[in-house]
Amino acid sequence: MKALIYKDKNTVTLTDRPLPTLQSPTDAIIKLSHTAICGTDLHIIKGDVATATPGRVLGHEGVGVIHELGASAESEGRLSKGDTVLISCITACGACPFCRKEMSSHCVSGGWILGNTIDGTQAEYVRIPHAASSLYKLPPGKVSLRDAVMLSDALPTGLECGTMNGKVAPGSTVVIIGAGAVGMSVMLTSMLYSPALLVVVDLDETRLAMARELGAHETVNSGGDKGQVVERLMKMTDGLGFDAVVEAVGIPGTFELCQELVAAGGVVANVGVHGTKVDLHLERLWDRNISITTRLVDATTTPMLLKLFQAGRLDMSKLTTHREYPLQILHSCFPYLRLDCYPI
Amino acid sequence: MKALIYKDKNTVTLTDRPLPTLQSPTDAIIKLSHTAICGTDLHIIKGDVATATPGRVLGHEGVGVIHELGASAESEGRLSKGDTVLISCITACGACPFCRKEMSSHCVSGGWILGNTIDGTQAEYVRIPHAASSLYKLPPGKVSLRDAVMLSDALPTGLECGTMNGKVAPGSTVVIIGAGAVGMSVMLTSMLYSPALLVVVDLDETRLAMARELGAHETVNSGGDKGQVVERLMKMTDGLGFDAVVEAVGIPGTFELCQELVAAGGVVANVGVHGTKVDLHLERLWDRNISITTRLVDATTTPMLLKLFQAGRLDMSKLTTHREYPLQILHSCFPYLRLDCYPI
Amino acid sequence: MKALIYKDKNTVTLTDRPLPTLQSPTDAIIKLSHTAICGTDLHIIKGDVATATPGRVLGHEGVGVIHELGASAESEGRLSKGDTVLISCITACGACPFCRKEMSSHCVSGGWILGNTIDGTQAEYVRIPHAASSLYKLPPGKVSLRDAVMLSDALPTGLECGTMNGKVAPGSTVVIIGAGAVGMSVMLTSMLYSPALLVVVDLDETRLAMARELGAHETVNSGGDKGQVVERLMKMTDGLGFDAVVEAVGIPGTFELCQELVAAGGVVANVGVHGTKVDLHLERLWDRNISITTRLVDATTTPMLLKLFQAGRLDMSKLTTHREYPLQILHSCFPYLRLDCYPI
Amino acid sequence: MKALIYKDKNTVTLTDRPLPTLQSPTDAIIKLSHTAICGTDLHIIKGDVATATPGRVLGHEGVGVIHELGASAESEGRLSKGDTVLISCITACGACPFCRKEMSSHCVSGGWILGNTIDGTQAEYVRIPHAASSLYKLPPGKVSLRDAVMLSDALPTGLECGTMNGKVAPGSTVVIIGAGAVGMSVMLTSMLYSPALLVVVDLDETRLAMARELGAHETVNSGGDKGQVVERLMKMTDGLGFDAVVEAVGIPGTFELCQELVAAGGVVANVGVHGTKVDLHLERLWDRNISITTRLVDATTTPMLLKLFQAGRLDMSKLTTHREYPLQILHSCFPYLRLDCYPI
Repeated sequence: MKALIYKDKNTVTLTDRPLPTLQSPTDAIIKLSHTAICGTDLHIIKGDVATATPGRVLGHEGVGVIHELGASAESEGRLSKGDTVLISCITACGACPFCRKEMSSHCVSGGWILGNTIDGTQAEYVRIPHAASSLYKLPPGKVSLRDAVMLSDALPTGLECGTMNGKVAPGSTVVIIGAGAVGMSVMLTSMLYSPALLVVVDLDETRLAMARELGAHETVNSGGDKGQVVERLMKMTDGLGFDAVVEAVGIPGTFELCQELVAAGGVVANVGVHGTKVDLHLERLWDRNISITTRLVDATTTPMLLKLFQAGRLDMSKLTTHREYPLQILHSCFPYLRLDCYPI
Repeated sequence: MKALIYKDKNTVTLTDRPLPTLQSPTDAIIKLSHTAICGTDLHIIKGDVATATPGRVLGHEGVGVIHELGASAESEGRLSKGDTVLISCITACGACPFCRKEMSSHCVSGGWILGNTIDGTQAEYVRIPHAASSLYKLPPGKVSLRDAVMLSDALPTGLECGTMNGKVAPGSTVVIIGAGAVGMSVMLTSMLYSPALLVVVDLDETRLAMARELGAHETVNSGGDKGQVVERLMKMTDGLGFDAVVEAVGIPGTFELCQELVAAGGVVANVGVHGTKVDLHLERLWDRNISITTRLVDATTTPMLLKLFQAGRLDMSKLTTHREYPLQILHSCFPYLRLDCYPI
Repeated sequence: MKALIYKDKNTVTLTDRPLPTLQSPTDAIIKLSHTAICGTDLHIIKGDVATATPGRVLGHEGVGVIHELGASAESEGRLSKGDTVLISCITACGACPFCRKEMSSHCVSGGWILGNTIDGTQAEYVRIPHAASSLYKLPPGKVSLRDAVMLSDALPTGLECGTMNGKVAPGSTVVIIGAGAVGMSVMLTSMLYSPALLVVVDLDETRLAMARELGAHETVNSGGDKGQVVERLMKMTDGLGFDAVVEAVGIPGTFELCQELVAAGGVVANVGVHGTKVDLHLERLWDRNISITTRLVDATTTPMLLKLFQAGRLDMSKLTTHREYPLQILHSCFPYLRLDCYPI
Repeated sequence: MKALIYKDKNTVTLTDRPLPTLQSPTDAIIKLSHTAICGTDLHIIKGDVATATPGRVLGHEGVGVIHELGASAESEGRLSKGDTVLISCITACGACPFCRKEMSSHCVSGGWILGNTIDGTQAEYVRIPHAASSLYKLPPGKVSLRDAVMLSDALPTGLECGTMNGKVAPGSTVVIIGAGAVGMSVMLTSMLYSPALLVVVDLDETRLAMARELGAHETVNSGGDKGQVVERLMKMTDGLGFDAVVEAVGIPGTFELCQELVAAGGVVANVGVHGTKVDLHLERLWDRNISITTRLVDATTTPMLLKLFQAGRLDMSKLTTHREYPLQILHSCFPYLRLDCYPI
C-alpha cells in the first residue's frame, strides 16, 4: 500500500509498505477514505517529537471502513467488517487506571500512539489497537465523511483542552489566543455553551475574518503595541478580564498575554504545545483565584460530539478549507497545510 | 466442581458442575478462595428476580486466583495466571456507551450478570467476562482476603448509591435508614467524608449497637410511635432536617420516613431494592430544592476503595461477623446470613 | 396609588393604597414601569396559597425606577435613586445560611415574599427589602424593559429548576412536558447548552407551534393514546429515553409520563407546582441511576442571564405575546393571561 | 483603647487609640477576647504589603463580643449585642457580583481589609463592616474561644486554597510542601477527606514531628540533595506522582519542586504568598492534564468548619502552641510568633 512516512528531519516521503495485519484479537484494520494533516505532524517532521522515529507512517486522524476485525473486537457486537468508522486520535484500552478515570490520553497501552509510536493514518490502511474503544461507527450516507475527520482530533481537543478546561458556560467572557485549526475548534465548541462574549486574537487578518464568519463576537489583531492590545481587550470586559483565556499557540509570549487577560476567578486553559518553559507571574496571581490547566486530549467527548454532528447541530464544513487531494499529492502539501482532508 | 445453585423458588442446592471454560479471549477463569451471600441472593431464591433462572450458580462477590486467562485479557499486561484478584460484582466491557460514561451497571454486555444471567461465584470456579476491567489484582500477603470480599459489592454500593449520591461532605448531617449490610457500608463510607452528624436508624438494637461501635454518632430505634421518631430525629438537626437521607431498606414506609427527614436542599439517596411503587409527596416537596436518587452500583469507585484498603485506611473487619465456613455449609446458611465470607 | 389586590377567593380588585415607605435602611421603593402576571398569581386567587392572605397586593415580577433608597442599600454604592432596575422575584438577604449556600429561595428573611407575604409589584410602587441583593441595575436605553420583566422569574425558573437541575449539556436529549410560560423558559434556556434533541410536549397545538418557532427540534401532542405518545417519544431516542425530562405542568399524570421517558442515568426535573402526592415507581426505577429534582427558583442565575440579555444573546421578545395594557385593564385580564407585560 | 499598630517598616508599637464607632447601619463593634498573629502580619511589617499603610492597627483574626450593632445588622435577627462571635478574616457584603459567586475574597466593598486597608483586630475593639455576613455567632460555654480563632483565617485558608483547590478526595495522594501554620491547616483539613497518602515536607524536624503527631502518614525533610528528595517522594506513589501537591511556602524553589511531584491529572494548589515570578515548565507539563490553582481565601467554608468544630469533630488545640499572653506582650512576640492566641 501507499503510505506517507517521516523519513528524516524535514523529510516526508510517499512509499510502499506491506498491508498491516491483526496483532491482537482486539485490533482492527481500517481501509482509509479520508485523513488529515495536524499541526503535530509538522512538529514530528521538524524532529521535535522524540518518540516518533524515522520510518513512521504519519497521521492520527481519519475515517475509513473496517477491513478486518479481531475476534474480541467483533464479539463486543458494536463493530462489524464493512462498517464505516471514525478513528479517534487517542487509542484507549478502556480498562487501565487512566482509562477508568476518563484520562485515556495517558492510557497505559494506548494514548496518542497513532503516527507517533506506531504507524498512523496517512496510508491506505492502518491497524487500530483496542478497536472497541477507539473506533466509532458512522452512518455513511447521512453525514459528510470529510467533515467527520475533524472529530478524530481537532474538535475533541478544542472542546476538552480549551472549552471545558476553560469552564466556558452561558454568560462567560472568552478570549482565544491563536486562530489556527485548534483555536477555531475551541471557538466552535465554546459556542455550544453560549458565552456572552467570544473574542479571537491572532496576527493573521484572514484567520480573524474566518473567525468572525464562524461566529466570533469580536476579533483583535495582536500585532503592534502589546499594551494597546491588552487595553483594548480588557475594555471589552469593563476592565475585569476574561473568565476563560485559551492559549492556542504554544510560545512564551502568548502565555504571558494570557496571564494579563485572565479575570479574578478565571482560567487560563493551555492548548498550545510548548517547547520551552514560561514565566508564571505568581507575584501578581497568587491572590487572584485563578487556574491554569494543561491537557492532552482524552477524546472522552467524542461520543457527545458525534451525537451533535449526526443531529446536524455542529457545522464543521468551513474548518476544512482545502479541496480533497489524492494521497500522492498529500506529501507535497505537508509544510503548508493543516487540518485538510484527503480521500485515499 | 462444587457449586451452589438456585434450584427453584426457596430452594438452594449444592451440586456438581463441570469446570467453566474460556468462551472469549477477554475472559478469565477464577479459582475462588472466598465468596459471600448478599441480600440480592435472597431476593433470587424468593423468586423475585426474573432474570435469574433455575439452575443458576449464585453469587456475585468473591476473591480468588486466576486459573486461566484469555489472550486479550493477558495482552493488557496487568493480569497474569496465578494472580490473586478481587471480582467486581459489576462486569464492565469498558467500551460501550454506558461504560464510557462511568455507568457500568448498565454495560451493554455486562452489568450485574454474575449469579444472575450467567453463573456466579458461589462455586469452586467462576468464569469472568471482560476480565481486564472486571478484576482487580490484590497483594495477597498484605491484605485480608476475607475482608477484601466486602469490596466486590457492599462497599462500592454503600459509597456510590448512598454516600456519593447523598453528596455527603465534611459538615453534612446524614441519616441512614436501615442498618443491614448495605446501610453499614453507607455508614463506613460516609465516614470517609467527615460528616458533622451521622445517625443510623433501625428496629434492631443489636445492629444499632454495632453501628455505634463502628462510628455512628447517634442511633435511633424506629419502633414505636412514628411521630416521636421523626421529632427526635428532626431535633438533632435543630428542625432543619438532614442534608443526606439514605434509604437502605426498600419498603414504602421507610421511603415515606425519608421524605419527612430531608432538609431543604438535601438528598434522599435510595439504596433499597423496591418491589412496589411508593408515594412521593410533591405537594410538600416541590419547593424544597431536594433530589431523590436511585442507582445500581457501577463499581467505578472500586479502584479508590482498594487504594484506601491497601493503605490500611478502611477497616472492614467488623462487617463480616460470622466465621468462615466450607462451601458445603454455605447453602445451609442461606436464609439466615448476609454478607458473610466463606473460604472455598 | 393604584394597586391590584387579592380580595378574596377568585376576586382580584384594583384599589387605592398609600404609597409604600422605607421600613429598613436596606429597603428600596420602586416606581414600576412594567409588571407581569405569573401562573402563581392564579394559584393565589384560587385560594391555593395559604401564606397569601386577602388584601395582599399581587405580583412578584417587575421593572421600574428607584424612587427611594435606604441608607445601607445606598452605601453599597451599586444602586442610586433614579436607576432603572429589574426586581427579582426572590428577595435575598445575602447573609443567612441559605443565601450563603446559593439557596435564596429559602432565605430566612426573604425568599418568595413579594405578592405573597408582603405587598407585590402589581401596583404603581413597591417596597423591596434587601435591595442590594434583590435588585439589578438595567441600562435603560439599551435593552427592552418589557422583555426584561421575563428575567424577574420566568427565565431564572426555567433555567434553574428545569435546565440546570436537568443537567442539560451539549448533546443531551431533552423533553419538556408542558409548553406554558415556564416550559417555554426551560426550552429557551436549554438552548443555551446545545442539546442534540429538544422535544416539547403539550395538548395545545398553538403552543406547540410557538415552541417550534422558538427552537424546539420536535413537538408532540400528548392528547390521544398515552401508549402511542410514549412510544413515539421513545423512538426519537432509539428507545433509550431522555437524558433530561422536565415536568412543567404539576399534575400526577404528567409526572407519571416523565417516569416512563427518563433514560437510565437521566434526570426528571420537576418545575410544576403540585397540589397532591404522586406515584413514584421505585420498583422500576431503583436500579436505573436516575434523579428526581425539585426546586423553587433561587434567582442565583439572574446576573448570568442579564449578561446574556444585555449582550443581545437572549431573545425573549416572543415570550410576551400580548400587547401592553394600562394597570386599569390588568385586573380584567387576570383569569386569562399569563406572563404578559404591562406598563404602569 | 490599646492597639498594636504597624508604625513603620519593621516597627510595631502598642499605642492608645480612640474606640471605633459605627460608620454604617451594617457595622458592628466587637470587644475582642482573643486575636492571633498571622504570617501576613509579618509581611506587612516588613513593608511588603503596599495597601497596609503606617498607622494601621494590625490583625485580621479574632473572637470577641458584640459591643455595638448597627440597625441593619440587628434587623437581620441573627446577631445581637452581647453575642460572642467569630470574626472572619474576609469581610463580605453578600451582594456584589463577587460575593454572589462565592468569591468574597474579591468583594467590591470588602475582601481582606481588616488590618490591611482598615484597622484590624489586634486591639481591644474593632469595627467590622458588613457584620451580618462577616461575623459568626459562637456558643461561648461550649467551645474553646482560643481554638475558635483558628477559624478566622488559618483553617478556611488551608481548606479552600489547599485542600479543596487540590481536589483532595478519599484515596488521594497528597503532599504538602511547607509545615507552617497554613501547611498544617491544609493537612488537618485534608484529613476530612480521607486521603490514602498524606505527606508533609519541610526543612524543620520539629515541625515534621508535629505534622506526624497531628496525622501526617509520612514526612520528608527537604534539606540535602534535591534529586534524592524527589526520588524518595515519587517512590511513595510508585513513581506516579501526587494527585494533590500543595505549595505552602511561597518561593520559586518550592514551586519548582511541586511541578516535579505532580501526577498526570493532578493539581498544584498554591497557597504561598509569592513576591516574585516563577518558572513554569510547560514544555514538560503541557500534555500532563494538570491544573495549577491560586486563591485568596473566600471564607465561604467557615459555616461548614464551624459546624464540624461545634460538633467536636475538628481538633485544633495543637495548632496554637504558645500560651496566652496579654496584649501588652503581643507586640514583643511579633517577629517570633505565628498563629498564636492572645486574650485581650
